[in-house]
Amino acid sequence: MKEQKNSKLKIIPLGGLEQIGMNITAFEYEDSIVVVDCGLSFPEDDMLGIDLVIPDVTYLKNNIEKVKGFFITHGHEDHIGAIPYVLKEVNVPVYATKLTMGIIEHKLREHNMLTKVKRKVVKYGQHINLGCFRVEFIRTNHSIADAAALAIYSPAGTVVHTGDFKVDYTPVFGDPIDLQRFGEIGKKGVLALMCDSTNAERPGYTSSEKTVGKTFDNIFADHTDSRIIVATFASNVDRVQQVINSAYKFGRKVVVEGRSMVNIITIASELGYLNIPDKTLIDIEQLKNYPDEQTVLITTGSQGESMAALSRMASNIHKKVTIQPGDTVILSSNPIPGNEKAVSKVINELSAKGANVIFQDTHVSGHACQEDIKLIYSLVKPKYAIPVHGEYRHLKAQARIAQELGYDKEHIFILSSGDVLELDEEGAAVTGEVPVGDIMVDGLGVGDVGNIVLRDRQHLAEDGIIIVVLTLDSRSGQVLAGPDIVTRGFVYVRGSESLMDEARKVLEDTVERCMDKNITDWGKIKTEIKDSLGDFVWKRTKRRPMIMPIIMEV
Amino acid sequence: MKEQKNSKLKIIPLGGLEQIGMNITAFEYEDSIVVVDCGLSFPEDDMLGIDLVIPDVTYLKNNIEKVKGFFITHGHEDHIGAIPYVLKEVNVPVYATKLTMGIIEHKLREHNMLTKVKRKVVKYGQHINLGCFRVEFIRTNHSIADAAALAIYSPAGTVVHTGDFKVDYTPVFGDPIDLQRFGEIGKKGVLALMCDSTNAERPGYTSSEKTVGKTFDNIFADHTDSRIIVATFASNVDRVQQVINSAYKFGRKVVVEGRSMVNIITIASELGYLNIPDKTLIDIEQLKNYPDEQTVLITTGSQGESMAALSRMASNIHKKVTIQPGDTVILSSNPIPGNEKAVSKVINELSAKGANVIFQDTHVSGHACQEDIKLIYSLVKPKYAIPVHGEYRHLKAQARIAQELGYDKEHIFILSSGDVLELDEEGAAVTGEVPVGDIMVDGLGVGDVGNIVLRDRQHLAEDGIIIVVLTLDSRSGQVLAGPDIVTRGFVYVRGSESLMDEARKVLEDTVERCMDKNITDWGKIKTEIKDSLGDFVWKRTKRRPMIMPIIMEV
Repeated sequence: MKEQKNSKLKIIPLGGLEQIGMNITAFEYEDSIVVVDCGLSFPEDDMLGIDLVIPDVTYLKNNIEKVKGFFITHGHEDHIGAIPYVLKEVNVPVYATKLTMGIIEHKLREHNMLTKVKRKVVKYGQHINLGCFRVEFIRTNHSIADAAALAIYSPAGTVVHTGDFKVDYTPVFGDPIDLQRFGEIGKKGVLALMCDSTNAERPGYTSSEKTVGKTFDNIFADHTDSRIIVATFASNVDRVQQVINSAYKFGRKVVVEGRSMVNIITIASELGYLNIPDKTLIDIEQLKNYPDEQTVLITTGSQGESMAALSRMASNIHKKVTIQPGDTVILSSNPIPGNEKAVSKVINELSAKGANVIFQDTHVSGHACQEDIKLIYSLVKPKYAIPVHGEYRHLKAQARIAQELGYDKEHIFILSSGDVLELDEEGAAVTGEVPVGDIMVDGLGVGDVGNIVLRDRQHLAEDGIIIVVLTLDSRSGQVLAGPDIVTRGFVYVRGSESLMDEARKVLEDTVERCMDKNITDWGKIKTEIKDSLGDFVWKRTKRRPMIMPIIMEV
Repeated sequence: MKEQKNSKLKIIPLGGLEQIGMNITAFEYEDSIVVVDCGLSFPEDDMLGIDLVIPDVTYLKNNIEKVKGFFITHGHEDHIGAIPYVLKEVNVPVYATKLTMGIIEHKLREHNMLTKVKRKVVKYGQHINLGCFRVEFIRTNHSIADAAALAIYSPAGTVVHTGDFKVDYTPVFGDPIDLQRFGEIGKKGVLALMCDSTNAERPGYTSSEKTVGKTFDNIFADHTDSRIIVATFASNVDRVQQVINSAYKFGRKVVVEGRSMVNIITIASELGYLNIPDKTLIDIEQLKNYPDEQTVLITTGSQGESMAALSRMASNIHKKVTIQPGDTVILSSNPIPGNEKAVSKVINELSAKGANVIFQDTHVSGHACQEDIKLIYSLVKPKYAIPVHGEYRHLKAQARIAQELGYDKEHIFILSSGDVLELDEEGAAVTGEVPVGDIMVDGLGVGDVGNIVLRDRQHLAEDGIIIVVLTLDSRSGQVLAGPDIVTRGFVYVRGSESLMDEARKVLEDTVERCMDKNITDWGKIKTEIKDSLGDFVWKRTKRRPMIMPIIMEV
């Protein structure tokens, strides 16, 4: 049994619920806070022009003296991507396993922050003491090497956070998930389990990464007479390893293409996470020195990202690689929801160039399915179940699994970002809320695009803009020039001359009416212009462009 | 054998290839043209503000004296949606089966064109003679009742066009696809088969629509204590019938909600395609008079369309239906590619309100899978295979099926929209091209939004707009007012005052420099403003808003 104290443990997710992305959770006990993960999310479709989204960490800033450190479970963007932004404001040490730290350091270097951030590489089984907390890293498997679950020991009890994980009994690199340790910690008593929900809607078990290697071998055996191009996630080092294995087995040279792919492979090789046989890797410039059927390209772009290497090859704007009839292209990935059409576009373009595109059985998930989730629950046997990492539907699906396992509703907490869950052996309840939100990053601007700017962008995107300019005499209030009209994104002006002429007439009438009525209040004139022109345009086109009157005074 | 003539048959797809949508194909023999289908497509993600897309029918307009009629295979938007637009320019008779015509007439009525268009309802097995052509309607199955394949008899030979089809041995309404007739026509010799490719990547057979009815029965049996809401495609009358059957069996009243659902059900009932037991249908206003567990709602919104009934219920803005904890919601559909995230959003919102959302095994496809396609090829045994209805990847997948069946590449034609395929018993070849394209419809405007307007909308959407206004003295060329600066969708101005101040300074310097250099050419002044302000903004924000200088003269 745990040592009993009066204080309770607070679990405060600052992001990562209601969505897949932006994972960050604070654990607070008295004067100590530790934070698990610090991820970004990618913009929703209606976040026009936004590059990425980071969490609002006002709560951490307001409690800066309590915050002891960040514990990072693995090196994916939705777990590490906000580190450079958040650490500018909450600069505390970062703890992570070796590969994860390698990727974080690359990111910090890009932001010129490497010397400013304290970092500590942690081994599986190692415990870190910070304030009231002790945190242990436990080996798991995932679609990136070096993933860890965390056991967070507090005076109020132990929380196990799985991070993103799968159960892989035959991983490509390293050892299987440390199920024994999950069992051992569970046996000692666990207050709460925070478990990955991504695949909680999927029945059965997640297959081993090694099954993809077998598929690669089969494809390589079937296509000995063509070039092979494999697109996959840059961060899936084990997948890359398996392509390299098949290439080596079938006597092919390997080229790596795409900036993020080159980065990760460089980091992974330096740190010993990739085993590349001598003379297997060649530079893209050397490609021409080998017959097609003795080469493999590993590239980015498996999600149809428009600027990634594969998409550039597909649309014939890649500088160094041209798709040829007969090329075998393997998409070693499933489309992430929202990317389906972009991926399909790439498949169409590649097929139209005569490439043979293979996308079936060439991917396995990195997340635990229903039976794997049941396994972890059965090892950890927590008092409370807190599904994490997913949209509401996924959290709910895990809650159903917990219920199947015998948990009653009072012991399952589907939290929202910002909820403060207070718990100890005596009980658990959401007792408050802290500020959370999406901070949008657009170019160099962090947070300077908010809902007003976004609404304007959406309005502009939908129907364009009509600008009306008018110069008035400051003394007499009389019109000196205009009203002139300029539009963008509304209609093709040259094809709509009569419409524009009529619009101008409407404006002249409106301005004249204002002058006749001796209206000198600019705000009023602008409103009149917006209303009359807006009505006219709606009647004629059923569109509502943004109408922007500008009055100048001479 | 066919009667041999010198002329060849021309097959000219004016849309529908390279995409799923906008199906329209011209068949030309000497002085006769008949057209199969006249569909619209929905805008791609980058077609900002566009409502729908229709085909460019310049070729038909240029050959108006040849065009004899439109033959419509079934009542889906991608086959009928452009009829009101195209018939305004190419007003020839329309031939279709009863339900299809009912839906077309509803559409024509909305466009005030019902009296202007000649229509003829055709029965399966009926032959229509038009110019050099004879066209026969053959019964098929699909996800809408009354679907037809067409046998198009020309002096150069017979073409079989499947339309969209599946093979359903146990359809809900009417008879199974007329496989005998496919065989009979095939036996007499078919020049070309144009076959639906939508599911050509999917192995196996498509299940019968009736299997969904069994699932409904099971779900109704498992949820006798809650209200049931079923969302599906409005046009899937058989699916609606099966919901009604289950409702009747389990003693529930049925409410139909959502404009398009009400429309189609009204049409289908009037024409005898729906069999609704007495006193089963109730008005939505009566819902409150029945206990929840005795009601079923059938609604639109299964694709997550933001304004559809289910989405409005999910986001709590539906006027008459509020989702309650315990409600059972069945999504009887698969997300169409591109709609995944919208559907997921609805599932999340419904789940968060406590509804139990069911979306597994509640849908079957309306399109033939690989083995079904093989069956049709084996019955029709065409000389030439012309895969239709699909993106390139789907057409290519059907081409591979044809190759498996023994067709060599010279007898398989993957066409592009606009290709002119000339063929007869002697041979087949693409001999030319006709103009084709996307005509974008935005509000009342048809074709007035083109690439320039779209590019502006994309630019505005990405980074907003900066408007710079300047009033000059027409005689001296001196600045009388400004430069003033107004932005929308760029930054939140109140939070970026120093940036805006600096921008104003850059502008003042630029204008001053122009004045000093005696630059009076407005074009040149505008270019200077765009360049200097653009550089400044890029350096400071890494954004490229549209910069629009406006000069007024007094």
